[in-house]
Amino acid sequence: MWQSDSVPRFDLPLEELREYRPALTAPADFDGFWATTLDEAAARATPTVLTRADGPLAGFEVSDVTFSGFAGQPVKAWFITPASPSRDEVQRPCVVQFIGYGGGRGLPVENIAWAAAGHALLVMDTRGQGSVWGTGGDTPDDAPSGPAAPGFVTRGIDDPSTYYYRRVFTDAVRAVAVARELPGVDAARVAVQGGSQGGGIALAVAGLSGAGLAAHPLTAVMADVPFLSHFERAVGMTSTDPYNEVVRYLSVHRTRTERVFETLAYFDGMNFAARATAPAYFSVALLDPICPPSTVFASYNHYSGPKQIEVYPFDEHVGGGPLQWWRQAEWFAGLLAG
Amino acid sequence: MWQSDSVPRFDLPLEELREYRPALTAPADFDGFWATTLDEAAARATPTVLTRADGPLAGFEVSDVTFSGFAGQPVKAWFITPASPSRDEVQRPCVVQFIGYGGGRGLPVENIAWAAAGHALLVMDTRGQGSVWGTGGDTPDDAPSGPAAPGFVTRGIDDPSTYYYRRVFTDAVRAVAVARELPGVDAARVAVQGGSQGGGIALAVAGLSGAGLAAHPLTAVMADVPFLSHFERAVGMTSTDPYNEVVRYLSVHRTRTERVFETLAYFDGMNFAARATAPAYFSVALLDPICPPSTVFASYNHYSGPKQIEVYPFDEHVGGGPLQWWRQAEWFAGLLAG
Amino acid sequence: MWQSDSVPRFDLPLEELREYRPALTAPADFDGFWATTLDEAAARATPTVLTRADGPLAGFEVSDVTFSGFAGQPVKAWFITPASPSRDEVQRPCVVQFIGYGGGRGLPVENIAWAAAGHALLVMDTRGQGSVWGTGGDTPDDAPSGPAAPGFVTRGIDDPSTYYYRRVFTDAVRAVAVARELPGVDAARVAVQGGSQGGGIALAVAGLSGAGLAAHPLTAVMADVPFLSHFERAVGMTSTDPYNEVVRYLSVHRTRTERVFETLAYFDGMNFAARATAPAYFSVALLDPICPPSTVFASYNHYSGPKQIEVYPFDEHVGGGPLQWWRQAEWFAGLLAG
Amino acid sequence: MWQSDSVPRFDLPLEELREYRPALTAPADFDGFWATTLDEAAARATPTVLTRADGPLAGFEVSDVTFSGFAGQPVKAWFITPASPSRDEVQRPCVVQFIGYGGGRGLPVENIAWAAAGHALLVMDTRGQGSVWGTGGDTPDDAPSGPAAPGFVTRGIDDPSTYYYRRVFTDAVRAVAVARELPGVDAARVAVQGGSQGGGIALAVAGLSGAGLAAHPLTAVMADVPFLSHFERAVGMTSTDPYNEVVRYLSVHRTRTERVFETLAYFDGMNFAARATAPAYFSVALLDPICPPSTVFASYNHYSGPKQIEVYPFDEHVGGGPLQWWRQAEWFAGLLAG
Amino acid sequence: MWQSDSVPRFDLPLEELREYRPALTAPADFDGFWATTLDEAAARATPTVLTRADGPLAGFEVSDVTFSGFAGQPVKAWFITPASPSRDEVQRPCVVQFIGYGGGRGLPVENIAWAAAGHALLVMDTRGQGSVWGTGGDTPDDAPSGPAAPGFVTRGIDDPSTYYYRRVFTDAVRAVAVARELPGVDAARVAVQGGSQGGGIALAVAGLSGAGLAAHPLTAVMADVPFLSHFERAVGMTSTDPYNEVVRYLSVHRTRTERVFETLAYFDGMNFAARATAPAYFSVALLDPICPPSTVFASYNHYSGPKQIEVYPFDEHVGGGPLQWWRQAEWFAGLLAG
Amino acid sequence: MWQSDSVPRFDLPLEELREYRPALTAPADFDGFWATTLDEAAARATPTVLTRADGPLAGFEVSDVTFSGFAGQPVKAWFITPASPSRDEVQRPCVVQFIGYGGGRGLPVENIAWAAAGHALLVMDTRGQGSVWGTGGDTPDDAPSGPAAPGFVTRGIDDPSTYYYRRVFTDAVRAVAVARELPGVDAARVAVQGGSQGGGIALAVAGLSGAGLAAHPLTAVMADVPFLSHFERAVGMTSTDPYNEVVRYLSVHRTRTERVFETLAYFDGMNFAARATAPAYFSVALLDPICPPSTVFASYNHYSGPKQIEVYPFDEHVGGGPLQWWRQAEWFAGLLAG
Repeated sequence: MWQSDSVPRFDLPLEELREYRPALTAPADFDGFWATTLDEAAARATPTVLTRADGPLAGFEVSDVTFSGFAGQPVKAWFITPASPSRDEVQRPCVVQFIGYGGGRGLPVENIAWAAAGHALLVMDTRGQGSVWGTGGDTPDDAPSGPAAPGFVTRGIDDPSTYYYRRVFTDAVRAVAVARELPGVDAARVAVQGGSQGGGIALAVAGLSGAGLAAHPLTAVMADVPFLSHFERAVGMTSTDPYNEVVRYLSVHRTRTERVFETLAYFDGMNFAARATAPAYFSVALLDPICPPSTVFASYNHYSGPKQIEVYPFDEHVGGGPLQWWRQAEWFAGLLAG
Repeated sequence: MWQSDSVPRFDLPLEELREYRPALTAPADFDGFWATTLDEAAARATPTVLTRADGPLAGFEVSDVTFSGFAGQPVKAWFITPASPSRDEVQRPCVVQFIGYGGGRGLPVENIAWAAAGHALLVMDTRGQGSVWGTGGDTPDDAPSGPAAPGFVTRGIDDPSTYYYRRVFTDAVRAVAVARELPGVDAARVAVQGGSQGGGIALAVAGLSGAGLAAHPLTAVMADVPFLSHFERAVGMTSTDPYNEVVRYLSVHRTRTERVFETLAYFDGMNFAARATAPAYFSVALLDPICPPSTVFASYNHYSGPKQIEVYPFDEHVGGGPLQWWRQAEWFAGLLAG
Repeated sequence: MWQSDSVPRFDLPLEELREYRPALTAPADFDGFWATTLDEAAARATPTVLTRADGPLAGFEVSDVTFSGFAGQPVKAWFITPASPSRDEVQRPCVVQFIGYGGGRGLPVENIAWAAAGHALLVMDTRGQGSVWGTGGDTPDDAPSGPAAPGFVTRGIDDPSTYYYRRVFTDAVRAVAVARELPGVDAARVAVQGGSQGGGIALAVAGLSGAGLAAHPLTAVMADVPFLSHFERAVGMTSTDPYNEVVRYLSVHRTRTERVFETLAYFDGMNFAARATAPAYFSVALLDPICPPSTVFASYNHYSGPKQIEVYPFDEHVGGGPLQWWRQAEWFAGLLAG
Repeated sequence: MWQSDSVPRFDLPLEELREYRPALTAPADFDGFWATTLDEAAARATPTVLTRADGPLAGFEVSDVTFSGFAGQPVKAWFITPASPSRDEVQRPCVVQFIGYGGGRGLPVENIAWAAAGHALLVMDTRGQGSVWGTGGDTPDDAPSGPAAPGFVTRGIDDPSTYYYRRVFTDAVRAVAVARELPGVDAARVAVQGGSQGGGIALAVAGLSGAGLAAHPLTAVMADVPFLSHFERAVGMTSTDPYNEVVRYLSVHRTRTERVFETLAYFDGMNFAARATAPAYFSVALLDPICPPSTVFASYNHYSGPKQIEVYPFDEHVGGGPLQWWRQAEWFAGLLAG
Repeated sequence: MWQSDSVPRFDLPLEELREYRPALTAPADFDGFWATTLDEAAARATPTVLTRADGPLAGFEVSDVTFSGFAGQPVKAWFITPASPSRDEVQRPCVVQFIGYGGGRGLPVENIAWAAAGHALLVMDTRGQGSVWGTGGDTPDDAPSGPAAPGFVTRGIDDPSTYYYRRVFTDAVRAVAVARELPGVDAARVAVQGGSQGGGIALAVAGLSGAGLAAHPLTAVMADVPFLSHFERAVGMTSTDPYNEVVRYLSVHRTRTERVFETLAYFDGMNFAARATAPAYFSVALLDPICPPSTVFASYNHYSGPKQIEVYPFDEHVGGGPLQWWRQAEWFAGLLAG
Repeated sequence: MWQSDSVPRFDLPLEELREYRPALTAPADFDGFWATTLDEAAARATPTVLTRADGPLAGFEVSDVTFSGFAGQPVKAWFITPASPSRDEVQRPCVVQFIGYGGGRGLPVENIAWAAAGHALLVMDTRGQGSVWGTGGDTPDDAPSGPAAPGFVTRGIDDPSTYYYRRVFTDAVRAVAVARELPGVDAARVAVQGGSQGGGIALAVAGLSGAGLAAHPLTAVMADVPFLSHFERAVGMTSTDPYNEVVRYLSVHRTRTERVFETLAYFDGMNFAARATAPAYFSVALLDPICPPSTVFASYNHYSGPKQIEVYPFDEHVGGGPLQWWRQAEWFAGLLAG
């Protein structure tokens, strides 16, 4: 029988990965930092705007959404529900989906699987992103920017308060709050899902759900090959972007190493995972050079809620691809069926 | 104003592409070759088998299809229709979709856009393929194989009767015939669509629709960045697979150049395009090294039916991506409404 | 004898390059756009701040400079003069130097050649840049940013008023004005110099010197392998960054091609060159894939002042390297000697 | 003195390689599987056909050979002997040579070294291969093919009975039996030799020589940088083809990992080595990314007969190249003299 | 029918290649330069030393040869003849073979095809080379060396008298003279053959055979994908070594372009071809980036003797490989029979 | 806080690097070998020649230097001092600077930082080099050369007496002796500095300063990311030149491994470091594939004098770049002041 642990790869063998649990790095004021950030965003929120977005997806109702994200700034999303029965007739569970690095919300057709499975779906745009693949993003990132390596990972990285992902994670926590109030959504059954950067965002939301979200806990967290996890190992482990953007930054700003990792500690998926309690389904790929398996297991092994993980031994960053979605959708249906 | 024709690229400038019309290469017995092939396949056909394929796509009815392809051999497909109204209640137009090189029909969730637009959808597996990306194919390619370069493009290439695409194109013509008889399909409104290899297959079906298809003409042909077109220019023009598989083959079998191109003449998209009459919507990308724009225009300019083409000046083989699907879906809706 | 024009390369042969003169693209309000921009920057300017920057360069006096750039925003620079005789004792010519893409002003030791040649030297930081090579930049780019491809070339590219280089070019025009008032500088003898992006900035300043600069004309313009020139040919001609950032942007934002090139027309080196009158020394490398020779000659051939160009037939983007500096320094000394 | 074991490389240090002995993986019915397979091939064998192949190699007698391989299917080979003395006059030892991956038997001039050393030589074509390098192969692989990654390594890999190398190894065992009966061959002195895939085939024949070969044991086994050995470590260890074809296959067919390795256990060089008894000469290269040294030592260390191995510390897959042939030829001459 | 001239490639289309005849570049003292050089070498020649080299090639007699090359310096070679009949018994035609760039004479087994065809064979070592592939060279290049780019192509390139290929070509002319006097060689039937650099050397010998060789003309010249031809086009045309070594040199020594090409004019295959009269067989590959087809045709079209050329349309630098040897051997046999 | 030792990289973790101390390899006659070599060079020395080199560096006095190096052969250098006060007026400390692999002394402007810091500066040309980057070298390497891989690292490597770096290191020891006698130099305050190959040369001089240098000890040794250190680990550890030149050589000359490492033992930075006593400042980059950190620490940890090392955790071979120079210059000023 094939034993994955007899196969040497660029990262730890599987049985060590399953036990890999590096020390958490959350600074003392981690929770305070986020509470303040989320409170301020909530305080500056204005009503969500939905506009019907006509198009060829006859089987679905699609709305163009603008909601208040970080510091009340406008963030775009698509809200997609099955056309029949309509939003007025039924309350559905809702999946809030976050996008991988470099992509935007694109056209509605790009992300319809969760709606095709019969759920409500909110696809959040990632601010500033959406010009590398897909059909584009529509949300600016309104912040002054100091010198940064091309890309988003080092934008404002010299301080937690200016760091790019402070704004993104806040947008995402807000997106869940917004989703609960959308027409046809059952506020008690909201899940988050994403792959790569989207998985990292999902973990952040999972960890912040006590602080920033209202009455209901998250129903599920689905994080595939998540990015933004265990930075101290990830940065410099492979030469692959986007973690390598931090390498590039530190290769020039040679005296800021400590400062940069102090910032990143506020944004590390491990630290969020340790605070998360919702049922979680992870996936990881053992040949993934972009989000190396040990960095994924670092968050998984620290995750505090009920959890399971799918291991793809021969895949790179694609992970389980559509097969993992299929398994997730069945797992999520099982959770809902309770 | 930006003038794409002032931009030098690796292929001809756009205004020359629009006029590029190389000599057709169809041999004298082209039509006879295909008539015989298709007749034999039709003669050996057995009834199509549909099996309900349960899964998480609650909004759709999904069936696992086995139909008779080349020489009566079994070919797999997914048949996907909106769940409501059901196949029993309504007759829908049907899109027959062909897959790009290396992929298989995969899981049903991988190709649902046409069904999400409210149509019936038949996704045909490509025999032997499906082990390079996606989640796999399920159709063997039952044929003895002489020495060939890794890949499918040189399999049996020494003779038209043994060439791999003889089998694939026949499968595809059969798929359209099969689609017309599926439950809930309006036999008078069937279209073909595909990108890259899928686009090449769609063109072949378009050109063979007189010979192999029954009472009804095709409603529409949608070919995106089609492969398998204008081989004499394509092979050796760039160093990119899959056209380069032929280069690799001929770099070893140095004395077979004429024989190979004689075979390919029976399978060239240009020759099919000149025989096609259904309304067509093409797309092409000017920086596409895999299916260079002149090879696409070679088929487009020879296409005999009503036609239009979308030009993406700064894309590579991704072409218009989801935007092109969006435009196609609107165009197809217009045709149906027309 | 070797004839460079008998050598085929990826761009035009040399004799055609020498005559290559594509149509200019400046829109009707080009001059107005820039006049308004520069006037506003001048109106919001605050006094320049110099701070003595101690360090090991014993032979020079080095000052850390903060001056008002675009919209009055602070921009950093180094001001370097020979220690002996001191700034109080002598009025020297001043070279204002602009940096290549991705670099910042760095440490003073990185750019001292002009000061070693006995001149005053002002090295301007490029806002937002300085995290890819060298030892870093110190100037933020304070502007809201819509979705953009990683890098700076597509930042705000949907409109001339928000485009990144509007801010950079304005900083540069301001830097020349500031230089004229620095201690020990002979305001009547100020030159601009830069390579690659720095050369593109130098050309912009050369073209805007009538509009934004005071009493004195520029003494000299030295542009090596300049970037930001003849965008319609440059974008998509090779697959090399940074021009390729625009390709990447347009490959996603497929419907914005015209809009983007309309923006770029306000920033094209050709259009600035046609307005420039100071003596100029260009250099170009015939194997340069980053700033292809035809794009450099497009600006050179349109340059309206006295000019000469050095051609390096076997170099890539390094161009003439230190040899070109040597030649420039001798040429500049000759100009000053008059 | 240089100590190769002090040099860290991508695989184990040399002293650990010399002891590396992973658990064998042969399933219980390994011997039965092969006995049945070989018996069936023998039962369906038809007489070998030799045709004189004229050409410029005046110093040799060359025959085009067609013999019965797997399931009695025809397999091509070259039979080459020194012209003087002729085959009628002398009985020579015979080397049966197997070809590396992607090549075919080619033209007779491509493999004449063993004949130049005065031996009889039978060069076996590898079915289906011969279209990637060299001058081509002439033997089809007659088998239905399910979906497989491009290449030969995953052809039929879902089951031992359909796996490609079942057919190849059977051809090779048959080739040795055939060689013993060729004119001018001393049936008691037959050896096998090959590099890379050819080395893997040679090991398979060595292990199967009890089961499928007649009265005489093999005289010698020469396996250079052998492929097809210790699959569990080899697959996924580096990203190099052809082992990586299995990675590619499993990255798509994500649920078949166990089944695939169960198949491969019937074809693993280690399992054949443990059954082999003929004198063997291996070679291995410590920087070989295609057939990593630990996978070669896995077979070598399990080899049951008299053996020696040549270690090339600074070579990649070329191994010892002609030097290793030189050493082999001397070693083989010694054996024969012995 | 396939028309190679309809396929655009990186070089000229085939029908233009067949007519491509750039101006020759031989300086006025070309013949004098070579006469002096060869006379001096001849004057300093000492007797050739043959030593029997035992080894496993039982079918051949192999001698280790040391002969006087440039300036009387010792050059190594292998002399290989069929063992039966022996050198004493028969006078055979002799092929003098030159090696490709980076290789040495290696072990005798590496080059035995011509001897296997029944001829005498002299394989000349290339001075200084033999440390990149194969099993090594044994001839030093005794000359003081100014700064040069790594490799051999720019060694001494600032002056014809110090240029590396002055020494190599002289060695080669001497090798032919030496061959005529070797035991068992028919002095009236000596040919030269080589691929790539070896082809360039063969052309040089062909052009110098009037000046440096004795009573007999060369019997044949076989030049496959020859290097060292039409430098003005070749250098900078592609980015491939070894022509690119000149690019690298001139990219640093920016002021020596004219001087370098003045040197190269004494060594250009075109100039030798125009002086050659022996029957010649060339080969060329249309996708060859190392020796682009136009540079090969430049020499071929200027070749003054009877000639033919084999065109391989889909090969890179491998050209016809063993097939071309096969054809050459048959052609040479025909010449001898002629 | 960021802990560099928690980050796995391609080499040892930092805390192990700090203790890494492989066995020294100096052969018994190491000191004798070098004493003889240096004595011979000293014995053959002729007077140094200085020529004023006019140019645009008005702030400096530049002289073109020719001095006697290995075996009395002429070696070029630049001698650069601040123009004011002049060499006649003041005695300055002198830095002797060695150049990185592939470069030459170039134009004086390429290396002026130490002079800009107020010191005298002697920039030594590296014999034979200077044709890969920069603006060229001017010193030939006068030695007969056996077969070697392209580059300098295997030139003469079969024997210590013929090895290339024997000549280079001797040149360098001589350069320090020459520097002490240059006008305006304080013979008691001479330091050596260099990066990469330059750092390796600096270490060699440091280790040889007892043997070959006169009355005064070296004032300082500054070695950045030094090359030529701990060959047994470095060669084959990564696939990066120039260490890989040795791999390439040994991959062909497969029987010379021991001999080659026996030669290299005379030239290993570790062995020099263990003999050095001057105060030293090293730098190392943890992601450096060209001079891997363990090879640098091997020399550093064996260094016998007072020492410190700067660690750049996220840089490749650029190391600290200008920042390291800045720190060095401050450190050196402190030593001088000390």
